[in-house]
Order: sequence, then C-alpha cells, then structure tokens
Amino acid sequence: MNKYLITGFSGFVSEHFLEYLNDKPTKTEVIGLDIEEPNFEILKFKNVNISFIKVNLLDKIEVKDILSIHKPNFILHLASFSSVSYSWSNPVESFVNNTNIFLNLIESIRIQKINCRILSVGSSEEYGNVTEDLLPLTEETILDPISPYAVARVSQEMLSKIYVNSYGLDIILTRSFNHIGVNQKEVFVIPSFVEKILTQKKLNKNLISINTGNLSIIRDFVDVRDVVRAYDMLFERGIKGEIYNICSGKGNSLKYIVEIISKFLQVKVNIVEDISLFRPNDNEKIVGSFKKIQNTVGWSPKHSLEDSIHTIIKDKLTII
Amino acid sequence: MNKYLITGFSGFVSEHFLEYLNDKPTKTEVIGLDIEEPNFEILKFKNVNISFIKVNLLDKIEVKDILSIHKPNFILHLASFSSVSYSWSNPVESFVNNTNIFLNLIESIRIQKINCRILSVGSSEEYGNVTEDLLPLTEETILDPISPYAVARVSQEMLSKIYVNSYGLDIILTRSFNHIGVNQKEVFVIPSFVEKILTQKKLNKNLISINTGNLSIIRDFVDVRDVVRAYDMLFERGIKGEIYNICSGKGNSLKYIVEIISKFLQVKVNIVEDISLFRPNDNEKIVGSFKKIQNTVGWSPKHSLEDSIHTIIKDKLTII
Repeated sequence: MNKYLITGFSGFVSEHFLEYLNDKPTKTEVIGLDIEEPNFEILKFKNVNISFIKVNLLDKIEVKDILSIHKPNFILHLASFSSVSYSWSNPVESFVNNTNIFLNLIESIRIQKINCRILSVGSSEEYGNVTEDLLPLTEETILDPISPYAVARVSQEMLSKIYVNSYGLDIILTRSFNHIGVNQKEVFVIPSFVEKILTQKKLNKNLISINTGNLSIIRDFVDVRDVVRAYDMLFERGIKGEIYNICSGKGNSLKYIVEIISKFLQVKVNIVEDISLFRPNDNEKIVGSFKKIQNTVGWSPKHSLEDSIHTIIKDKLTII
Repeated sequence: MNKYLITGFSGFVSEHFLEYLNDKPTKTEVIGLDIEEPNFEILKFKNVNISFIKVNLLDKIEVKDILSIHKPNFILHLASFSSVSYSWSNPVESFVNNTNIFLNLIESIRIQKINCRILSVGSSEEYGNVTEDLLPLTEETILDPISPYAVARVSQEMLSKIYVNSYGLDIILTRSFNHIGVNQKEVFVIPSFVEKILTQKKLNKNLISINTGNLSIIRDFVDVRDVVRAYDMLFERGIKGEIYNICSGKGNSLKYIVEIISKFLQVKVNIVEDISLFRPNDNEKIVGSFKKIQNTVGWSPKHSLEDSIHTIIKDKLTII
C-alpha cells in the first residue's frame, strides 16, 4: 500500500489531497503532521488510513523518529510559514523557519537513507518582480524574489538541487500559483470577497458594497482540486530534480472575480477601491505556463475559474 | 574618526585589511569580532585603534549589544563557515550557520536603525557550474551553486537585496575569487604547495616531489592586498545594493603556480598527480571579470601572480 506523509496536514490543500486519495480505486495510508489539529474530520476519508501526529517540524529529533518509524513512500511537504505579510514584519523567523523545517526533513531522509519521493511545494512568489514581456512565466524565467518568504522558497529550491544531484535524494519541486477552493481561509482574496458579499446578501441589503485593494491586478488562479491532482501525478510520473509550474495558464483580474460572484449570486456590488489596501510594489500581472508539467505527466487544469468560484459559493450556502 | 567593525577578525583577510588601514594617512578605529583570538599581534597596527571582542556571531543578543554600544560606520562581514568540504559533510550546519550569522547582523542593524554601510563578502563559488562559453564571469552570469556553502552565499545575496530595497539598509556585496597572500592557511592550494616544496628544499633533497590533485584546472587568483583595497574602495564609493566581482581577470593553471614556485626557489619539482585528490565535478576553468568594480570605483588589481607568490615565499623564508 502506498504510504504518504503529509506535512502541513491541517491546511486546506491537504484536505483536498485526502479527498483525491479517497477517490482512488486502491486504499492508501497517510501519516499527517501538523503543529495544529486539523479542523476537518479525518474519519470521513473511508478509503484512506490516516494517522495524525501533532508535531513541530522544527523539532529535528521528532522528525527523525517519525520518518524512521513510518518510512513513507511519498512525502508531500505542504508545511510552511507561508504568509508574505508576516515575512515582512518577521523576516528572520520567516526565512529561518521555512528553510529549517525543510532541511530537518531532507537531512533526516539523507542520513537515514529513506527511500522516498519528496514533493517540495514552492510558490509563484519566487518569480518576484515580473514585467509583462516575461509572461507567461516558465520554469526557465529568472527568479527575482522580493519578499523574505520568497527568498526562503528559492533557497529551498537551491538546497533541493544539491540534495538531488549530490546526495541522490528523489525530490520534485513545484512553483504553485494562487490556489482557490473550498475551505480556503478568508485571509485570501477570493474567499474574502465571497464572504463579504454573501454576508450582505443575507441581510437583504439593496446595495452591496465592498472595500477592496487594487482590482485591476491580474493573477493566475488554479483550482485546488487541480493542484492536488498535479501533486499526485508528479509523485507518479514527475522527473526527479525537476521544477514544475502548477497554474491555470490564464490571467484574470480581481475585478472579473467580483463579477463572477455577483452574477452567480444575482446581486449588484458597489466596489470601493481603497488606496490604503493597495500593496506597494505589487506586480500588475502574473500568468504562468503549465507546458512543462503537461508535457511530462499529462496534467492540465480541468476546472474553470467560474466553476471554482461557483463551487466555493455553493459550499458556503450549504454550510449556512 | 571612521569606525570599522570586522567580523571574522582573526582570519588572514582581516589582518591584511588592518595593514591597509594602518597605512592610511588618518587614524581609524576597529572593533574586531571573532570566535577565536587572533594569532597576530594587534598592537603592531600603530595607526589603528583596535578593540577585540571574542563572540559567537550566532548569539543574537550579544551581536545586538555590540552594535548598539559601538555603532560602527562600516561593517566588513568576513566571518563565515567557509569550508566547501565541511559543507558537504555538514550541509545543514553550513547553510544555517552562514545565513544565521548574517541575518543576526543585518536584522539587528535594521531593528536598531544603525546608520552604517555593510560589506557582505561573497564568493565565486556562487557561480557554481561554469561552462567555458560563460567566461569571464560577470555579475550578470546566472548563478548555479553546487555546494551547500555556495547556496548559503546566494541566499545571503538574495536576503541582502531585500534588506536594501525594502528596509533601506546600505549593503554592498562582493563575489570574491580565490585569494592568495601571506599568512593564508595551508589548507589552501598555494600555501600548501609552497610549504611542501620549501620543506623538501630545506632537507637538501635532490629531487623534490609533491602529490597533487588535478593541476590542469584554471583559477582566477587575486592578491589579498588587492582584495582589501577593493573592500575599502567599495566602502568609500561602491553603490548600495550592487554586487561586485573581485578578481584578477586572469586564469592560471595550478601547474603554472608550481612552476612559479620552482623557478623562484631554483628547484626541480616532480609532480605526482594523485587521482584520489581530484575533486569530483570540479570546474575546469574559472575566470572572472572585474570591469564593474573598475568602472564604479576605479579598482583594478596591482599585484601579479608572480609578485603574490614571491611575497608568500619570501615571508616563509623570513620566518624560517
């Protein structure tokens, strides 16, 4: 039976990955690691044997013991101190913790000679400053990280390369673009818009009004269900040491996202762009290319942006 | 009076930097930090007021206190866990310690808002795998670091960029090529050759014989006296946030170095190349370009390779 170890187990990507595993024809085993308990029910995944271990990944010895006991075939390394804004106020913690949790993991695998494939999840933030002529971003585009978080991610990639080329570890790397999906936290832009608009609709307000940042910026949103499918396809058929963009290949403005939500909920939304919410030095447009992963493992996104947003809204309506 | 803080104070580059300061027309003040006592006499530098503090730079609080008390104008950050071979056997320690000592320093400067210029000394190792068509290496050449030590150095550069662009720190970066000079440790290639040959000459051996690694490899050797002059010129006129190669611009084979030594000492040396001493994946040829630092601050190397080697040998003969 395939045995997966998932770090950052309690996050929303992990929950979707479990759903993906659950739908597989064969049973799988999962060891989930997180510093926090998951707020989803692990017993709902009938087709996955899950053991959850509460652990701080900065704790070298515990990490080593867990790996030595469980010896997974696949490690999905989702854990990170992933807030870019936190990384601005705490640059050292963000950098050190992100690189350290990764190093604890791969160093322990190296020393114990554990035979497993590791998926190191990176971010489109690594590209940093992007001018329009560089779009769509490919894995060959030069990286110019502009936040401490992004620097940690690039360092993680460089370290991975060394562990692959010189120590023979089997690591595959991703640069994952903006995720969207059910159960994503409301600090992220789409769930936040959905929540604000739904709350006002429920109050039967005639005019729904939302304060936003710069809505003209364009991002590449990819459905988390597509993302987790990509992760598993990379486990199965990705090439060791290679980096893969995971993205939709399409750019959409935040304004268009508000339009999709309004249309689906049949409401009119008054947008109040608030300069104080604009991020300094934010890229105007980011779009990725998924050609490489398509050519290597045959992955392409299945869910349209409309489909993703409709699913998120329907889920919120069910909960209410 | 200019106040310099030097980390890695007890190393040989620091000693040469002090000699350079000592020859200046005006007196300077130096705070020297190192985990080890220097093995040179600090009182010999009559024109420099030196205070030495024994400190582990991983100790955040001590570093903060020292900066807050001494408030230097210039920081020469020479300290590093600089052994590439150590970084292979201890990748995590090498990476973590190198990035942490740097982060402790710049984060403390950021938080305490200390107004100073920092010279972050990097390495030609950052270029990593180099093919001949990329030579001479310029600051624009794409980095492909292949050792944990080199990855730490590249991370240090990326972090510096963020501290410059977003927090306004005044950091200048170097990529310094192979140094040569008096008092360099014998783990380095040139002092090691000189030592081996001199020892046998003193025994009046007819045939001097040395075991070596691959002597056909070509490196860019730069005299440490030129290096420290470059550092001070960058303090004075370098541009904040910029990276500068410090190199001779010339490639010389290790074989040629043995020839210079033999000729100067008027001995015949039998070279025994020992395959076991060859480094795997070593670059055949590394040569840098110093155009950028030349154009910005007017620096170019003054000492020829012959001059550098003769100076080293003469120094050894004086000691004997």
